Amino acid sequence: MFSVIMAGGSGTRFWPASRERLPKQFLKITSDKTMFEETLERVRRFSSDDCVYTVVGSVHEELVLRISSLDSRQVLVEPIGRNTAACIGLAAIHLARRDPDQPMVVLPADHYVSDIDDFVRTIQSAADAASSGGIVTLGITPTRPETGYGYIRIAGQAESEPGARPGNAYRMDRFVEKPDHATAIAYLADGRHLWNSGIFVFTPRTILAEIDSHLPSLASGLREIDSSLGRDDYGAVLARVYERLDPISIDYGIMERTTTPVLVLKCDFGWSDVGSWQALYELRAGECDDRANLLLANAQAIDSQRNLVYSVSDRLVALLGVEDLMVIDTPDALLVARLDRSQDVKLVYTKLKESHGREV
Amino acid sequence: MFSVIMAGGSGTRFWPASRERLPKQFLKITSDKTMFEETLERVRRFSSDDCVYTVVGSVHEELVLRISSLDSRQVLVEPIGRNTAACIGLAAIHLARRDPDQPMVVLPADHYVSDIDDFVRTIQSAADAASSGGIVTLGITPTRPETGYGYIRIAGQAESEPGARPGNAYRMDRFVEKPDHATAIAYLADGRHLWNSGIFVFTPRTILAEIDSHLPSLASGLREIDSSLGRDDYGAVLARVYERLDPISIDYGIMERTTTPVLVLKCDFGWSDVGSWQALYELRAGECDDRANLLLANAQAIDSQRNLVYSVSDRLVALLGVEDLMVIDTPDALLVARLDRSQDVKLVYTKLKESHGREV
Repeated sequence: MFSVIMAGGSGTRFWPASRERLPKQFLKITSDKTMFEETLERVRRFSSDDCVYTVVGSVHEELVLRISSLDSRQVLVEPIGRNTAACIGLAAIHLARRDPDQPMVVLPADHYVSDIDDFVRTIQSAADAASSGGIVTLGITPTRPETGYGYIRIAGQAESEPGARPGNAYRMDRFVEKPDHATAIAYLADGRHLWNSGIFVFTPRTILAEIDSHLPSLASGLREIDSSLGRDDYGAVLARVYERLDPISIDYGIMERTTTPVLVLKCDFGWSDVGSWQALYELRAGECDDRANLLLANAQAIDSQRNLVYSVSDRLVALLGVEDLMVIDTPDALLVARLDRSQDVKLVYTKLKESHGREV
Repeated sequence: MFSVIMAGGSGTRFWPASRERLPKQFLKITSDKTMFEETLERVRRFSSDDCVYTVVGSVHEELVLRISSLDSRQVLVEPIGRNTAACIGLAAIHLARRDPDQPMVVLPADHYVSDIDDFVRTIQSAADAASSGGIVTLGITPTRPETGYGYIRIAGQAESEPGARPGNAYRMDRFVEKPDHATAIAYLADGRHLWNSGIFVFTPRTILAEIDSHLPSLASGLREIDSSLGRDDYGAVLARVYERLDPISIDYGIMERTTTPVLVLKCDFGWSDVGSWQALYELRAGECDDRANLLLANAQAIDSQRNLVYSVSDRLVALLGVEDLMVIDTPDALLVARLDRSQDVKLVYTKLKESHGREV
């Protein structure tokens, strides 16, 4: 099957390690490889090398070619970010030229999976269901009342679908925005809400037909791009079309509007979108020292506990008598914050950008 | 009068800003000048330019020549540190060649004084008392039960001495080691104990005579050095003599042993030896932002209070939601510590030196 790694996102929650030019998917935070490389390794478990594609912003094309063994044909470049519907549509017209009926998995480049074998089996089930024209998405069994994720509300089970293992396949009811804390607790209790993983499987033919039906302006733009494929003016057409596209997500642009039943596979493969420094700390808790310090750096912690230290350099970081902090060390900026203020790192980023008139 | 700035000390309490090669007196911590330069400015208030001398370790000779307008004749280099008695003796033999009866003020390069006018008046009084052959030292009226300083116990008043202003001149009883907390409280209450400033005034003739009487081995070494003054083998003789000298302080080597009465001038000119990062924070409290953050850096503090940030570079330091910390940022090492653990920075330094097998 095809894999399409969406690597266009630009995050600020990992500032100062992440910047506009170096978003989270290109950081080595979950291991000594970038999250993009980790994702690439995962998809190669079910897609042959030449069936792996990625969609990136132009600023990251060179980086991706350098850290992956993808050739330039496999790296689709968006001139500007226009959210996931456009990203997936662009990939679909490229893949449709090769085989419109071969399932394509689309997935973000910056997610973490602990049980990769289970992940691979799930994607293979999803591809089975998608190959006959279905739309499949992966919903993650929630393990806490998380307010940082969107949710998928499920309706009845759908075990008769091809690819559905007993007990894990549901019809989608609808996508739900990030809830407040009380609502998240209710979601966790009712068993009808799964975390929205942002992972989808369908054929190029299916998703392009859906775009035709529900996003006519995107569909017309994609037809223009499609007709320029292989021509010298491809880049110019792409830029012109993207310029006028409205940003809209695949969730709301297609999934919420489609009349085709959407199959939700309920998953438990240890998934995280690693949305903050604190999420990273929790994810890698097993690597902490005996006083719960996660030292992803040349660091020495003295009389200190429950701290996260992350450095992109070999610079020595010494902690003395401190608790519950994160120390994020980069060549041009240093962040020292309470770890439980992870969600506010974005605020620091914005504040600094405002006061400096540019990203810092 | 002569001034002799003792700049040979090597401290570790300001690690990682201070290193063996860059001790506290060469840091810009009390202002945007180094403490050495601040001291130099102060002594120029009572010593003409050509009467200012400094004693440094060989590793700092070049640095001192660069940051001061002293010429090489005024920069006396010790091949190895042998504590203050040797340092002062070396200066005294050089100065005795110019004028053995002109008072010399000897003072550490790494102390802070807030009321410089009062300091200058005090030194002038001390020089008056010293020019007739007396030994004078400055004792600081204690303002808190400080356990980090040595003390001078005073005996009766000595108002008849030349240079003694009414009420401020005492006979020295003896020097007292750094006390424990309970003792320091008693010292503060009894009014008979002053902080030992390490500042002395006497003539070269007087101090050399004292060395002759109480430190015969140093005296004989100094005679050897003296006889080589102006000769090509001065450096070689200096090295040979220093190698075999026992390190001893002027306090214990001379002041505790002399039969000449030592005059103590009681001072209130806002003195500090700036012994730790916390001492620096308290010293410069007036420069804090409205949430008591002392930001000696390109720093931004968000929802944070009572922190000290010091950086030797322009690197941005952002604080988020943190309190009572010090963040000391240097190109090759970073320290994040509770500010009230300032006294243990030395411990961090030692621990790192042990684990790395060298200074870090």
